[in-house]
Amino acid sequence: MTTHKFEHPLNEKTRIYLRVEALLNQMEQASQFSDEIQHQLFFRSLFDLLEIFEQIQLKSELAKDIEKQRLAYRNWLNVEGVDQAMLLGLLREIDDVHRHLMGGERFGQSLKEDRFLSAIRQRFNLPGGSCCFDLPALHYWLHLALAQKTRDAHQWMQTLQPLADALKLWLKLTRETGNFRAREAKSGFYQSDAEEANILRLSIPLDYGVYPMISGHKNRFAIKFIDFSSGQASTQDIAFDLAVCS
Amino acid sequence: MTTHKFEHPLNEKTRIYLRVEALLNQMEQASQFSDEIQHQLFFRSLFDLLEIFEQIQLKSELAKDIEKQRLAYRNWLNVEGVDQAMLLGLLREIDDVHRHLMGGERFGQSLKEDRFLSAIRQRFNLPGGSCCFDLPALHYWLHLALAQKTRDAHQWMQTLQPLADALKLWLKLTRETGNFRAREAKSGFYQSDAEEANILRLSIPLDYGVYPMISGHKNRFAIKFIDFSSGQASTQDIAFDLAVCS
Repeated sequence: MTTHKFEHPLNEKTRIYLRVEALLNQMEQASQFSDEIQHQLFFRSLFDLLEIFEQIQLKSELAKDIEKQRLAYRNWLNVEGVDQAMLLGLLREIDDVHRHLMGGERFGQSLKEDRFLSAIRQRFNLPGGSCCFDLPALHYWLHLALAQKTRDAHQWMQTLQPLADALKLWLKLTRETGNFRAREAKSGFYQSDAEEANILRLSIPLDYGVYPMISGHKNRFAIKFIDFSSGQASTQDIAFDLAVCS
Repeated sequence: MTTHKFEHPLNEKTRIYLRVEALLNQMEQASQFSDEIQHQLFFRSLFDLLEIFEQIQLKSELAKDIEKQRLAYRNWLNVEGVDQAMLLGLLREIDDVHRHLMGGERFGQSLKEDRFLSAIRQRFNLPGGSCCFDLPALHYWLHLALAQKTRDAHQWMQTLQPLADALKLWLKLTRETGNFRAREAKSGFYQSDAEEANILRLSIPLDYGVYPMISGHKNRFAIKFIDFSSGQASTQDIAFDLAVCS
C-alpha cells in the first residue's frame, strides 16, 4: 500500500537540522540546472541556508551533538556481543566528521564574502524579483555554459561539505535509534510518552486521506490526524507505523 | 554568435508587468511537477503573484493600457495601405481580451479564498519552511497522483487566465513596436532619448563578458556595461542591438 512518510522534530534544534538537511538536498538537486527554472531553487536554498546560519550558532550545536554521539558509542567499546570492528569504523567516521567540522570555516563564511552571491542575494526575495532587470549579473551568469555553472555551484556547495557530512551522520545515527512499530490512533488521536526523543517518524497509509498534526516535546507527544479534504480532525481509527528516535 | 538577451522596463508599471509575466511563465513550467522540487517554484510563483495583486490595482491598470492600444489601432481603420482584415482580427482579439479581463474576478480572489493554498501560504516564506512538519497539508498533497496534482494546478492557473491573456497581448503589441538596430556603446556607455518608451530590449554578444546596468525613464535612458568578472564598469567599445518599444 502506498504510504505517506512523515518526520517531526521534537525540539527546536532538530527542527533546524531537518530544515538544513532539506535545503542541502534541494540545493544538490537543483544544482543540475536541468531546466530553465532550477537555478531559482538553487539560489533560494543557498540564501535560506545563509539566513539560518546568521540566526543560529549551528556549528557549535552540531559539534556538541556529534560529541555526545561519540561518547555514547564509546561506551560500547569492549562490550561483549558488540561488533567491535564495525564500532571502531563508526568511531573513526565520527572522529573524521568532527575534525572536519571544527577545522572548517564558519558556516557560509566564504559564501557571504562572494561578490556575485552577495549582489544577487539582496533582491532575491522581492516577489518576482529574479527578472533580468532586477538581477542583471545573475542573468548574465545564466547564459554561461552548463559546465561553468555546474563548476560554480559545486564550488559553493563544497564550502558546506563539513556541515553536510556532520549533519548527515548525526541524522543517520539518530534515525537508526528508532524502530517502526504498528500503532493505532483511536478516533484519529494518538499520544505517548518518550524519552529524550528527537524525531518522530511516521508511515501512514495514503488511503485514510489524512495527514498528521503533531505537538509535544522530547518526553511526550500527541498526534492528531486531519482529514485532507475537509480540513477537520479525522474520527477514523488509523493504523500507522511509528518510530521514536532519540 | 551567442547573445545575451535582456529586457528593461522604463517605468514602474511595465516593471510589474514583466515580473508578472515571468512569474506566470515560471508557474506554468513548474506545474509539470517533473521533479521532486518543482512544486516549490510553483507555489512560490503563485504566492508571489498574490503578493503583487495585494500591492497594486493591476486589473484596472492593465484594462486602461489595453484600452489605449485599442484606440491606437482603431486609428488605422480605413487608412489606405493598411491590411484591414488583419487589423479587424487584431481589434477583435483586443475586444475579447478586454471583455474577459473586465468580466473576471478580482485577480487572485479565488486563490486567496482557497483553504489549502491559504494554509500553506503563511509558512512558505520561512527559510527552509517547506519541510513536512511545517506544512503537513502540502506534504500530503505531494503524495497524490501526478494527474490529481496537475488537475489542481491547472484549476488554480485557470483563474488567472484573463490576466495571462491580457498581459500577453499587451506585451506582444508593445514589443512589436520596437525594431532591433545596431548600436555601439563607446567605452562601455550608451545613452539616448526615447519617446514614451516602455521597454528596452537588448541583444549583447556574450563574448564581451559584460551585462548592462540601465537607468532612465520613458524619455531618456543610459546603459552602462559592467564587466562580469571584475564587477567594474567596462571600458570596451561594445556593439549591441537595441530595440526601443513604446
